[in-house]
Amino acid sequence: MTPFLALEPVRSLALPPPSSGATATLDILVGLFLLLLAAKVGEEVFRRLGQPGVVGELAGGFVVGPYALGLVVPGETAMVLSEIGVVILLFTVGLEIKTDELLQVGRPALLTAVLGVIFPIAVGTGYAVLVGEPPATAAFVGLALAATSIGITSRVLTDLGVLDRRFSRIIIGAAVIDDVLALILIGIVSGAAEGDLGLATLGLIVGALGFVGLGFAVARRARGLRREVFTWPLFADTPIVPVFLVMLGLAILAAFIGLAAIIGAFVAGLIVAETEAQDEIEHEIKPLAAVITPFFFAVTGAQLDLAALADPFLALSAVALAILGIATKVLAGLIGARGTGRWGALAVGVGMAPRGEVGIVVVTLGLSLGLLTPSLFSVVLVAVVLTTVAAPFMLNLVIPRAIAETEARAASSPAPGSG
Amino acid sequence: MTPFLALEPVRSLALPPPSSGATATLDILVGLFLLLLAAKVGEEVFRRLGQPGVVGELAGGFVVGPYALGLVVPGETAMVLSEIGVVILLFTVGLEIKTDELLQVGRPALLTAVLGVIFPIAVGTGYAVLVGEPPATAAFVGLALAATSIGITSRVLTDLGVLDRRFSRIIIGAAVIDDVLALILIGIVSGAAEGDLGLATLGLIVGALGFVGLGFAVARRARGLRREVFTWPLFADTPIVPVFLVMLGLAILAAFIGLAAIIGAFVAGLIVAETEAQDEIEHEIKPLAAVITPFFFAVTGAQLDLAALADPFLALSAVALAILGIATKVLAGLIGARGTGRWGALAVGVGMAPRGEVGIVVVTLGLSLGLLTPSLFSVVLVAVVLTTVAAPFMLNLVIPRAIAETEARAASSPAPGSG
Repeated sequence: MTPFLALEPVRSLALPPPSSGATATLDILVGLFLLLLAAKVGEEVFRRLGQPGVVGELAGGFVVGPYALGLVVPGETAMVLSEIGVVILLFTVGLEIKTDELLQVGRPALLTAVLGVIFPIAVGTGYAVLVGEPPATAAFVGLALAATSIGITSRVLTDLGVLDRRFSRIIIGAAVIDDVLALILIGIVSGAAEGDLGLATLGLIVGALGFVGLGFAVARRARGLRREVFTWPLFADTPIVPVFLVMLGLAILAAFIGLAAIIGAFVAGLIVAETEAQDEIEHEIKPLAAVITPFFFAVTGAQLDLAALADPFLALSAVALAILGIATKVLAGLIGARGTGRWGALAVGVGMAPRGEVGIVVVTLGLSLGLLTPSLFSVVLVAVVLTTVAAPFMLNLVIPRAIAETEARAASSPAPGSG
Repeated sequence: MTPFLALEPVRSLALPPPSSGATATLDILVGLFLLLLAAKVGEEVFRRLGQPGVVGELAGGFVVGPYALGLVVPGETAMVLSEIGVVILLFTVGLEIKTDELLQVGRPALLTAVLGVIFPIAVGTGYAVLVGEPPATAAFVGLALAATSIGITSRVLTDLGVLDRRFSRIIIGAAVIDDVLALILIGIVSGAAEGDLGLATLGLIVGALGFVGLGFAVARRARGLRREVFTWPLFADTPIVPVFLVMLGLAILAAFIGLAAIIGAFVAGLIVAETEAQDEIEHEIKPLAAVITPFFFAVTGAQLDLAALADPFLALSAVALAILGIATKVLAGLIGARGTGRWGALAVGVGMAPRGEVGIVVVTLGLSLGLLTPSLFSVVLVAVVLTTVAAPFMLNLVIPRAIAETEARAASSPAPGSG
C-alpha cells in the first residue's frame, strides 16, 4: 500500500496504543483540549476573515490532526464525542421545528430527496463504469454520493439565523427522507453483494420507515405535554437529564435499525419541541452544544487527507466526483424545490450537497465489503469531504440571495407563503 | 488471578476489542447511555428512600457494571468522561467560594484542616501498617481518609439551610484547605511510590504550592473582572466555551505538575467566582455538570468489587476504617473549631467526615498507581462510602443542637459573633 492512502490511519483510530490508565486519560484530555481549542481558534480566524465559522472548525481540526501538524490523532473518545456532538446538533435542529412545519413542505422535500438520491446514484455509477469499475463497485460509488449529511448544513443555517425559512425546512425534511432512502438502498446493495436479499432487507425497510413514522406520530401526540413529564424524578430539578437520555436513547435506537444516529436525535428534538419543556431545554442544551459539538467538526477536519491528492489522476477523480456530487444535488433541489424560487431552490440543492459522516460510513462499508479498492476508497472519501467543506461557502453565497428573492416576491405579491 | 480482582478489567479499559469504527462507536454510546441511566435511576431510588443521591449514583454504576449485571464494562471513553465529570464538579465547588470568605474563617479552618489531615493519616496509616500493608500502601490508606468532600458537605448544609452559619463557613474553608493539603500529599506519596523522591518531589511541592498560591493570587486579582474577558472572541456568545477551556487547561496543567487535575479545576472555579461572569457561568455549567458528572460516580461504582467483602476480615476492615475516619475528623473539628462552642465544633467535625468523591479519587489513583491491591481498593472505597452515607444522618442530629447552643450564647452574652 502506498503511504498516501487514507485507509490505514482511519482504521487505526479505534485502537489507541496501550498505556497506563492515568497517563492515557491525561493524554486524551490534552488531545481533546487541543481539538476544542483548534476548532475555536479556527472559527475565530475564519469569522474575522468573513468566512463561515464551521469551515474554521474543520480547518482547526485539520491543522492539529494527523495529516498536518500531527499534534492530535483522534482516538476512541474523540470519535465518540464527535458522534455525541452531531447528535446534540441534530437534536437542537429538531427542537426548533414543529412537525406541522415539516408537513407543510412535505411534497417539495420528498421530491428533492428522491431526485437527490436517483441523480447522484445514476451519475456516480455511470462515472465509475466509464472509468472501468465493475458494476457492484460502481453502484457503491453512486451510493456514497447519494447520502446527505445534514450536520454541516444545519450548523450553517443556524449560524445565518434562517432555520425558520421555507427552504431550510425543505432541506431538513429532504435530508431525513434522503437518509431513510439511502439506508434502504445501502441495505439492498450490501445484501446483494453478500448474496442475501429478501426478508432481512424487507425488515430493514419496515424498521426504518416504522421508526421515522412512529417518531413523527409521537411528536404529534406530544403537543402541549407538561414539563412534569420530564421533571417528575427527584433527580431532575430541570428537564435536561431526562431529555438527554431520551435523545441518546432514540439516537441509539435509530443506529440499531441501521439509520444514522442523528435521525434518532432529530426525532427526539421534534418530540421535545412539541412539549412545554421546549423553551427550557433550548436554554439548557446550549452549553452542552457549545462545548461538545465542535468535536464533530474538528474530528471531521482531522480526517481530511490531502496527501491522497498528490497523485494527479486521483486528485482529478476526486474533484470530478465532488463536482458531480454537488451538481446532482443542486439539480435535485432546483427541480424538487422549484416552487421556492430560483435562489431558494438553489439553496436547497446546495444545502443537500454535504455528504459528511454518512458518506464516510458508506465508503467504509464499501471497503469492508471488498467493493471498493483502497485507492478508489481514498478518491471517494476525498470527494465526500470536498462536498462537505465546499457547502458552507456555497450556502453563504446563495442564502442571502434566496432571502432577498423571497422578500422581493413577498413585496410584489401578497402570497400566503412566507419564504 | 482470582475472578474478584478488580485489576484486570480496570487495566484493560484502554483497549477496546478491534471492530469496525461505526459499530464500536455505537457499542460505546450504548454503554454510556446505560451508565447515565443507571446512575440516575440509582439516585432516584436512594433519594426516595431518604438516602444521599450520590450513593445511589455509585450503586447504579455498580449494578450495571462488570461486578454485578455486567451490562457495561467502562472503557476509555467512559473513563475520560468520568474524569471530565469530576473536573466539572470541583470547578463548580470553586465557583461557589469567594477567597474573602475563606480568609475570614482562616484560623479555625486552617487548624481544623491541618489536624483533619494529620489525624486520619496517622491513624489510617498506623492501622494499615498494623494489618501488614507495606508503608507506601499504608500511607495511601491514610491519605484516602484525609480527603474531605466539600461537594457532599455543602449539599447537606444547603439542604438544612445553614450555609451562612459560622460553623458552615469553617467546614467549607477547612474542607478546601484539607483538599489542597491532601492532594499535595498525594502527589508526594505518588512520587515516592514511583521511586522518585528528592529534587523531583521538591519540585512537585514547589510546583504544587506555586500553582495553588498563584491560582489564589490570580483569583484575588480577578475580582470584578468584566464578562468581556471571556466573551471578546466572536465564537463566544456567552462565556461558557472560553471558561471551559480555562477549566480544562488548568486541570491539565495541574496534572502535568503532579497535582490531581481536580485541583486545577477548583482553582479555575475560584478565579471565575471573582469575575462578573460568575453568575452566568453558574447557570451555564449546570447542564454540563448534570449530564457529565454522573459518569464519575457511575464509573466509580462500576469498579466497586463487593465480592472482595465476602471475606469477613475485609468487611470488618472497611467498617473499622470508616469509624476511624469519622472519629479522627470529629476530633480535628473539636480542637480546631473549639471557639464555635461544643456542638458547633462537633458539627464542624461531623461535617468534615464525608470523603465522597475526593476520597474516591484518592483510592482510584492509588489503584492506578498500583499502591492499592484490588481488595484493599474495595475495602477503602466501601469505608469512604460509609463515611459519606453516615455523615448526613449525624449532621441532622448535631446541627439543630449547634444552632440552639449559639442562640443560647447570643442571648446570655452580647458577643459580636453571630453563631
